[in-house]
Amino acid sequence: MPGTQPARGTRDFLPEDVRRRTHVIAVVREVYERYGFEPLETPAFENIETLLGRYGDEGTKLIFKILRRGEHEGSGEADLALRYDLTVPLARVVAEHQSELPRFFKRYQIQPVWRADRPARGRFREFYQCDIDALGSTSPVVETEMLAAVSEVLQKLGFEDFVIRLNDRRVLAGILERCGVAEAAQSTALVAIDKYEHIGRAGVRQELLNRGLSEGTAESLLQTLYPGAPAATGQASAASTEDVLTRLRGVLAEHQEAAGALENLAAIARLVQHTEAGSRLAIDPSLARGLSYYTGAIMEIAVPDLSGSLGGGGRYDNLIGSFSGRTVPACGVSLGLERIIVVMGERRMFPATVARGSADVLVTLWDEASRADLLGLAGELRKGGLRVEVYPETDKLGKQFKYAASRHIPFVAVIGDDERAEGAVSLKSLASGEQYSVARTDAPAELRRALNEVR
Amino acid sequence: MPGTQPARGTRDFLPEDVRRRTHVIAVVREVYERYGFEPLETPAFENIETLLGRYGDEGTKLIFKILRRGEHEGSGEADLALRYDLTVPLARVVAEHQSELPRFFKRYQIQPVWRADRPARGRFREFYQCDIDALGSTSPVVETEMLAAVSEVLQKLGFEDFVIRLNDRRVLAGILERCGVAEAAQSTALVAIDKYEHIGRAGVRQELLNRGLSEGTAESLLQTLYPGAPAATGQASAASTEDVLTRLRGVLAEHQEAAGALENLAAIARLVQHTEAGSRLAIDPSLARGLSYYTGAIMEIAVPDLSGSLGGGGRYDNLIGSFSGRTVPACGVSLGLERIIVVMGERRMFPATVARGSADVLVTLWDEASRADLLGLAGELRKGGLRVEVYPETDKLGKQFKYAASRHIPFVAVIGDDERAEGAVSLKSLASGEQYSVARTDAPAELRRALNEVR
Repeated sequence: MPGTQPARGTRDFLPEDVRRRTHVIAVVREVYERYGFEPLETPAFENIETLLGRYGDEGTKLIFKILRRGEHEGSGEADLALRYDLTVPLARVVAEHQSELPRFFKRYQIQPVWRADRPARGRFREFYQCDIDALGSTSPVVETEMLAAVSEVLQKLGFEDFVIRLNDRRVLAGILERCGVAEAAQSTALVAIDKYEHIGRAGVRQELLNRGLSEGTAESLLQTLYPGAPAATGQASAASTEDVLTRLRGVLAEHQEAAGALENLAAIARLVQHTEAGSRLAIDPSLARGLSYYTGAIMEIAVPDLSGSLGGGGRYDNLIGSFSGRTVPACGVSLGLERIIVVMGERRMFPATVARGSADVLVTLWDEASRADLLGLAGELRKGGLRVEVYPETDKLGKQFKYAASRHIPFVAVIGDDERAEGAVSLKSLASGEQYSVARTDAPAELRRALNEVR
Repeated sequence: MPGTQPARGTRDFLPEDVRRRTHVIAVVREVYERYGFEPLETPAFENIETLLGRYGDEGTKLIFKILRRGEHEGSGEADLALRYDLTVPLARVVAEHQSELPRFFKRYQIQPVWRADRPARGRFREFYQCDIDALGSTSPVVETEMLAAVSEVLQKLGFEDFVIRLNDRRVLAGILERCGVAEAAQSTALVAIDKYEHIGRAGVRQELLNRGLSEGTAESLLQTLYPGAPAATGQASAASTEDVLTRLRGVLAEHQEAAGALENLAAIARLVQHTEAGSRLAIDPSLARGLSYYTGAIMEIAVPDLSGSLGGGGRYDNLIGSFSGRTVPACGVSLGLERIIVVMGERRMFPATVARGSADVLVTLWDEASRADLLGLAGELRKGGLRVEVYPETDKLGKQFKYAASRHIPFVAVIGDDERAEGAVSLKSLASGEQYSVARTDAPAELRRALNEVR
């Protein structure tokens, strides 16, 4: 017999799991729609050339490749690959449909991606990303609207303690340069900086030295990125944003590109004050973000009790041009569905209505002669908007009641000979034990009323 | 530059496509929930052993296989495979979670599957199935409830001319036997019969002869399966159901298993009269269905203007046992999302609300100083439930109005110096050209009112 477990790093979602996922996705979608984003979906797999060389060497190793089929199967070659993120497929779609898409294309996409990562707590090989991207403009209004949208999603889901860290790739590059990190050493220094959350200041210092930076350069860099206490992940404030901006203006005064990028960050921070994201923003010059395609602002969203982020993103003004040959500025943010669900589960943030069980009422069957009539009753209740399960077999009533209780179905409907003669239905509430008879035509309305009472 | 097309046989779904798909899926899900089915989701890929040997030789060739990773990549071996249908993964899940699942587990699953079929009109390599399955009972109530549920889905979507053909594998086997088809020739005869819709009576006759049946056997078989005119795909009637049953009772009187299966079909047909599927059912002894795992009732749903079916299914009482070692009776029906959408598109069955465009209102920006204020207005309108797009750049008003029109956004909101001084907003309807000023606090309610008027 074959095994019965799902493939390594993937999961089956039983009904309660799906209901939780559906709840989060519905909130995400509703908010994104109100922000003017439109839905897009792309295939699970792409031609392999579309994905290779997009995610760096480490990323490329994690791509699932699909074997060529038919006579070519024996070659062991792959011609397709599973979607690794939603950004590269977007870039391909935009290049393909340039003429049909509006000048400012804003899309959301909520689909799974696959990475052959080593599975760990909260890290899976199949996981959903909830992305928004806005194309066609370099205005700071774009970043502002994105941050407002993801903030509203998280607030609607019940998150009250998230912080959005904001930085700009050009600011970070400017700081590295001003602190004396040679251009050739910048990317290795970024890898060290990216580990701050995991290994702390002393750890980063050691990493920087290991990677060949001098003590002076390392110290200067740490002082600029993390002056005083480590960055607080509590509530951000406009005052501290101004402090950070003032300090960095000093550091970057002589560096034209970085200083310009810093003023762009300042503009985003000012505009964000007028949105849902207002109190959430912290400019953090140490934020690096892994992906290589970012060119401007970068952002990451975190809560205190989750190592790693709930989501993140940034501006990538060159990626689409690599498909279309025509530069299209772009900016995107991705929320990780699995991480949101992990935190919401641990904090018991799901509303009670999400765990609504399989049905509102069980229609009992007890002899073959009355099956047709009871299927008719089930149809009437369903027409009344109720979720109805029919016990499929003729069985002792007590057993059927027990079945309803085990399934958390709150009501049971019975039509015996007496009820049939009277045109009535007996309803029993499994919570109260109360049983009473109502006219069959009134049953749907009565059950809706009674359900509202137990909820 | 890499190509920009999606992989062969797959499609990108632009916003309007996704909205249509979302509309259909929402109807399917809502109906399935009212029938007491619970949602289940499984991973896109399975361990390859889970899928091999499940779909016959032809099916196995169509499975997308995933190359082993890391040091094993060079071996050219596959260890995973993309989901080919939703039934085999269900069987695996049920075996894995036996102890947690209820005695009668009813699940729905709406997810894509992948088959390396030759792409054709309406046939894709990535397509969605909308499945319901009920486990744990052999009662004809199960089949009846399934047929009622899919009928209600199709009726809610606006289909008024579909027919459900119903047969039983054991009835078909009995007919073959009674007509003198030797057991060894039965499966090849079934392949020929399955082509009836495409090649007609004469074609099937020739195929049967080509496959070694005698003239007498072929004629007897055709006479039993298609007496008189070809099966009508119009409205079915209870009277014709009784006629078919009477005729088959005569043919199968001496064949105990087939006669029992026929009475089970008769019971389903009687019960179905009390449900939404009542007028849709036609017992059709020639229905064969391709998949090898069916053991009892089989069904297929068709509309006149689509060759092939909108969906189908059947009873498969042995599949789950092949994973769990414990026999669990099961029955399922699958609706094909793509085919439903093709027909709905051709017949213009989508409600106008599905094509609702990107936003309800465009907030215009015209100088940098007022951007923050206008982002505030966008937030107020979104709080009022409106879908709001903000023009991201400071641009001529006329250009922004044109942009709104090109995007089918029905309203534009403007705050100039006068409006700001008065705490007002100017609203312009692009349909009527009418422009008027309202108090900013009243703007959300006014826009909701005006939107209801244009829709």
